[in-house]
Amino acid sequence: MYEDRVRNSALLDRIVSAEEAALLIKDGMMVGMSGFTRAGEAKAVPMALAARAKTEPLQITLVTGASLGNDLDKTLAEAHVLSRRMPFQADPALRKAINAGEVMFVDQHLSETVEMLRTRQLGPVDVAVIEAVAITEQGGIVPTTSVGNSASFAILAEKVIVEINLSQSTQLEGLHDIYIPTHRPVRMPIPVVSPESRVGVPFIPIDPNKIAAIVITEKLDSSSTILPPDDGTRGIAGHLSDFLQHEVKKGRLTNSLQPLQAGIGTIANAVLHGLIDTPFHDLKMYSEVLQDSTFDLFDSGKLDFASGSSITLSAEKYKEVFPNLNKYKSRLMLRPQEISNHPEVVRRLGIIGINTALEFDIYGNVNSTHVGGTKMMNGIGGSGDFARNGYLSIFVTKATAKDGKISSVVPMVSHVDHNEHDVDILATEFGLADLRGLAPRERAPLIIQNCCDPIYRDQLMDYYKRAVVRGGHTPHVMEEALSWHVRLAETGTML
Amino acid sequence: MYEDRVRNSALLDRIVSAEEAALLIKDGMMVGMSGFTRAGEAKAVPMALAARAKTEPLQITLVTGASLGNDLDKTLAEAHVLSRRMPFQADPALRKAINAGEVMFVDQHLSETVEMLRTRQLGPVDVAVIEAVAITEQGGIVPTTSVGNSASFAILAEKVIVEINLSQSTQLEGLHDIYIPTHRPVRMPIPVVSPESRVGVPFIPIDPNKIAAIVITEKLDSSSTILPPDDGTRGIAGHLSDFLQHEVKKGRLTNSLQPLQAGIGTIANAVLHGLIDTPFHDLKMYSEVLQDSTFDLFDSGKLDFASGSSITLSAEKYKEVFPNLNKYKSRLMLRPQEISNHPEVVRRLGIIGINTALEFDIYGNVNSTHVGGTKMMNGIGGSGDFARNGYLSIFVTKATAKDGKISSVVPMVSHVDHNEHDVDILATEFGLADLRGLAPRERAPLIIQNCCDPIYRDQLMDYYKRAVVRGGHTPHVMEEALSWHVRLAETGTML
Repeated sequence: MYEDRVRNSALLDRIVSAEEAALLIKDGMMVGMSGFTRAGEAKAVPMALAARAKTEPLQITLVTGASLGNDLDKTLAEAHVLSRRMPFQADPALRKAINAGEVMFVDQHLSETVEMLRTRQLGPVDVAVIEAVAITEQGGIVPTTSVGNSASFAILAEKVIVEINLSQSTQLEGLHDIYIPTHRPVRMPIPVVSPESRVGVPFIPIDPNKIAAIVITEKLDSSSTILPPDDGTRGIAGHLSDFLQHEVKKGRLTNSLQPLQAGIGTIANAVLHGLIDTPFHDLKMYSEVLQDSTFDLFDSGKLDFASGSSITLSAEKYKEVFPNLNKYKSRLMLRPQEISNHPEVVRRLGIIGINTALEFDIYGNVNSTHVGGTKMMNGIGGSGDFARNGYLSIFVTKATAKDGKISSVVPMVSHVDHNEHDVDILATEFGLADLRGLAPRERAPLIIQNCCDPIYRDQLMDYYKRAVVRGGHTPHVMEEALSWHVRLAETGTML
Repeated sequence: MYEDRVRNSALLDRIVSAEEAALLIKDGMMVGMSGFTRAGEAKAVPMALAARAKTEPLQITLVTGASLGNDLDKTLAEAHVLSRRMPFQADPALRKAINAGEVMFVDQHLSETVEMLRTRQLGPVDVAVIEAVAITEQGGIVPTTSVGNSASFAILAEKVIVEINLSQSTQLEGLHDIYIPTHRPVRMPIPVVSPESRVGVPFIPIDPNKIAAIVITEKLDSSSTILPPDDGTRGIAGHLSDFLQHEVKKGRLTNSLQPLQAGIGTIANAVLHGLIDTPFHDLKMYSEVLQDSTFDLFDSGKLDFASGSSITLSAEKYKEVFPNLNKYKSRLMLRPQEISNHPEVVRRLGIIGINTALEFDIYGNVNSTHVGGTKMMNGIGGSGDFARNGYLSIFVTKATAKDGKISSVVPMVSHVDHNEHDVDILATEFGLADLRGLAPRERAPLIIQNCCDPIYRDQLMDYYKRAVVRGGHTPHVMEEALSWHVRLAETGTML
């Protein structure tokens, strides 16, 4: 049994139950688990940990690629297994624990976590738990629907637990490109020169002796939670598509644009989807998460190639894509998130990065993470890797939230994840502001006029005018700069 | 005459007066000028422009490497020649004009300006004005004490004016390494794999027909304005040196550390100077500006090699170094700032970046640019290129300013240039906070205890405690978060 999935016969006798495997993880350990935006996470061992925590003290530092599916972060948080969590999460129960100060959350640029582990600035990783399609004859681990940080976890950890997931299609084999930068001081250039560059091997190469346990599972990935395009997201997509066509007319881009990155979520997915009805062609993606829109773009003939670190699909798209993966396979590649988000590659390829803002201010600073300046939503994810280093940094959001009670365009953001130096383009359903080459005093009227919901426009312009009277490169009425957030907390609306 | 400096004989008849050369620059043009932190700026043509502006309308967009010496930014600002200025400045008169909204200042990451010019997202550059030691037989321009953005300006501009500065030592020839990344979509890796990698040519290669005028000058560079180390800066240097030695003990670094970058200014210079009295050896620098401390480290035998984009020295050091440049030449290299600060190279080499903060907050966000949140000081410079992408991101400042009236450690910074995701280490004369792997609630007590001046410590801890009661991943009392800045503006002190 399982010889087709565990092809190194010496490893067959390491197949154990999830509970038994989980015993390798002790209280106080740092554990690296596979999983990136609800794709390819280890599923059985974390559940066994949560169960065990009911009867004995068990708290760990959990490091992943990004967010986990199957309510694992919820289950682990509610079982109080997590003392520390990094570098990203997107779970309401875990979020609650983080905001209550019960879980120490370290919110990191997604390209940086394994760089810090490799240099022992974090760590050591005691145990890695990696979901796999198969283990090769040489003991190489073939990941499933995400690579994330799995390769480095397995390489750095003392012991590795592999979860062989029988539900994950064997067609995934060959899709991955595992390349790990060498430990400094001697590091050579990363040889990725286009989204389709294959520079590594299609499995995680480790000493099979490190594989301490193998668990057989069959639970599916969770499907994505994105909503279908609506008028608002279609509006944003329209403004962006007009802008990109304008760039083509100006001769700054061709109709093949530059490689595209799009953040996780409904808006970025809708923006990509919107490219179907444009004159663009022969597009390429060099992104983190490949969502439904990637496959819609493939099917429409617009997209030539997509490189990512995970595939996260809606339930319907999942059923469409995975049984037919071979149809897409020559145009797809999954990489470690260190490579999908690497500053070196992002700058070299000249990526157009499209990410979602929670709010932005009249000078172009973006808050991606903190509701009301204090409460963590999900985390910065990879947006900073792309916004700082790419060709064009675009942030999108709907102009208001909570039925207009919250304006996404404010005098001063309550937390800064992307500052004015890193933001080229802002777009809402009302319009787009092109900030390139503009000073703060030029940006403000443009952002207010083009991006702000009309119901907040006068109020925002009034703030700006009074700020300008006080002077400064970036004028503010400092005692009022955060008053919109204070008013929201006190009265329930920014109006 | 000048045949030793203008070696392409066809160009000799293009030697004209500065006034005549300046006529190539018309009202409304974008002009790229050499100059990086008071080193190697074009000196005669800008003065001629300022003079001409007295009698005719003349306003330009001025792009440089970084700040200019010889009071040029002051002279140009006071003559109202500057309508727009990028990407950095450090002049009190220009600063005043920027803060009054008279000059539109675009404050950019220093690695990004020419990338935006090359892709025509800014520009076009109409005229480049480049200070040079010589023009080669083939028409190549040999820069002087800085490279900055000069190479790309000359390559991209329609017309080039060269200022041959007879006071600049001919020993500078051979020191420069000019490498320009290719225009996308096809770009190969930048082959710099160590600070001493020579990957280009020692001159700016352009078609000599583009050289429209040559001006002969002899004014010296301005000397740097850094102050000698004092108790405060020695204290900061001591804490950093202790920290780095601790990292060596932990096995995370060797005694040769990683390549060092240090920002411009008194504190960073003192910190580097402080490395003389440590067990470190065989150090290398991969930085922007090479200051006095670089040569002190060479002379002490601690430093093996230094790569930068400019050399900016005190008057005394200048007299010591430049007549004896050949002594240092095999261990020195000057590169375009796009390469000295390139995300690709910064990440590959694993640079330790040491930069100066104006203020930082209890969660590790850093303000490098805006006094009181509104008034521009100098600009972000290259700090963001290094802080985001390097191995270790260190920010230093004295704990107070203005005789204790201003605390450099505040509840919330009034402007964010480097956010919590990009800041590893904070140090003042009181101590150092190592933020790696910590959540915001862990950072705050550490920063307050280790870095804050004792006269502000209780006040800051009181804020933090009251913030924690409100909850959140990053607790704040939002209506008080900027109250220290408001109090300073109203009462003259944050106390």
